[in-house]
Amino acid sequence: MITGKSRIIGLVVAYLDNQFYPAAIQSLGHRLRARGYNILLMMAENSTEGVAQVVQDLMAYQVEAIITASVAMSSDLTERCGALGIPVVMFNRGQDGAGFSAITSANRAGGARVAEFLVAGGHRRIAHIAGWQGASTGRDRAQGFLAALDQAGLAPVAVTDGMYNREAAAQAARDLMRAADRPDAIFVGNDHMAFAVMDTLRSELGLSVPGDVSIVGYDDVPMAEWPAYDLTTLRQPLNRMVEATVETVLGQIEDPNRLPEKIEIAGPLILRGSARIPEGWTR
Amino acid sequence: MITGKSRIIGLVVAYLDNQFYPAAIQSLGHRLRARGYNILLMMAENSTEGVAQVVQDLMAYQVEAIITASVAMSSDLTERCGALGIPVVMFNRGQDGAGFSAITSANRAGGARVAEFLVAGGHRRIAHIAGWQGASTGRDRAQGFLAALDQAGLAPVAVTDGMYNREAAAQAARDLMRAADRPDAIFVGNDHMAFAVMDTLRSELGLSVPGDVSIVGYDDVPMAEWPAYDLTTLRQPLNRMVEATVETVLGQIEDPNRLPEKIEIAGPLILRGSARIPEGWTR
Repeated sequence: MITGKSRIIGLVVAYLDNQFYPAAIQSLGHRLRARGYNILLMMAENSTEGVAQVVQDLMAYQVEAIITASVAMSSDLTERCGALGIPVVMFNRGQDGAGFSAITSANRAGGARVAEFLVAGGHRRIAHIAGWQGASTGRDRAQGFLAALDQAGLAPVAVTDGMYNREAAAQAARDLMRAADRPDAIFVGNDHMAFAVMDTLRSELGLSVPGDVSIVGYDDVPMAEWPAYDLTTLRQPLNRMVEATVETVLGQIEDPNRLPEKIEIAGPLILRGSARIPEGWTR
Repeated sequence: MITGKSRIIGLVVAYLDNQFYPAAIQSLGHRLRARGYNILLMMAENSTEGVAQVVQDLMAYQVEAIITASVAMSSDLTERCGALGIPVVMFNRGQDGAGFSAITSANRAGGARVAEFLVAGGHRRIAHIAGWQGASTGRDRAQGFLAALDQAGLAPVAVTDGMYNREAAAQAARDLMRAADRPDAIFVGNDHMAFAVMDTLRSELGLSVPGDVSIVGYDDVPMAEWPAYDLTTLRQPLNRMVEATVETVLGQIEDPNRLPEKIEIAGPLILRGSARIPEGWTR
């Protein structure tokens, strides 16, 4: 405030029901505060118009930068932020050709790792309930997963879009299990959907996980290790992603000429009880 | 902005791991935005010093009001906010003698309702893993619960403070089940702790819920109805609490002479599968 700067960073978020985002906001808030910044939080509908309206409001507040968590921005909006000298950093979402920084996990490599794991576990009827295909995360995980299956000489029994939505994922699980060629393993595009899939398989269809079907998620949210789910999942390294986001945002505030960066951070596959563990792999 | 007002309301939150708070923030954000206000979010350690530092920062941002979610404020701080004409509204926390508004659910009545339910279900060895006793919510629920047990001629087999913390609640569950007089029902002071208690009983101790022990929580967070927990719980009417908070905050901004209000909103007991259902009570 002394410098005439607002010391406020706008944060645009679409979802809070997926446990990944509250955890990210908590971590971002603490780290930014330690550097003398605070968060103006705006919830946006995940639509081009919704985000545009919110970003316009943020500009009026003279925020020094904008972090978007899992929302996309139009190129028009990008240009306006650029013209006003407001850096934009996308957290957990990439966007082709956009002129701003993006911090994600290594989603293609992560998807491929899940495929290797399921194939090594002896699964041959493998399905994918993908993350929303309008998002880079959903597309990248699916692409990496399918390419690795293909390399192993396998085609998926089904690929469907779970929209990062609990109800859509539950319905996808029902449809998969009703089909003639039922899967014996499902890679689900994030943990939030994987919980819904496990609930549907166990409570509604009376199936055993992993006895009848192996389930693998993506994120490693805190709930994934709760015994009720004990979910095998590809961890997104939240703290390292948040650190990189903070460094990038502050770097661009300090040096407006700094070029946008695309940072991908790899995470490990966390082996738990929801998927058959291949021989020689250890928890 | 046109009026020279900041149109920003500061929101101070201590926890985001309990699913109740992300849901509250999402609802608050949407409702305030519809009225032309936005949220400056600050995470605070739940200590007097932590909160004081955060509130001081919020004043520097010229927020028009402050909403605190489950954090306490010193009377010194209250006075300073009052002197600056910044209304403070406490969400989901009351504070005796404090000169500001507080919106809570009817925690005493809720605790009493849980006691009636467990007694009607034939339970006679009843324990309480309470919410943090430094918070009005934890104290009020415990008082209502114990008073109603007493009216039924019962004393609890044990009362312990779960601190609204997952690990503390799990440890409390272990201790209760190791004791000579093991409970056949546990009222847990919020859902977040109840999930930990159920995980501990089922996965660690091999007990059946409700076969061996009935569990009742408090809040009715979205996860409570997920089949993995299917938790019987006293619902805090989140949307009505948020509505009342928004009306109170905006009312005090518009009329600085408006007196502080204490608003308590009653919620129903939601019957699910984690506790024995007394004859004549229906889901």
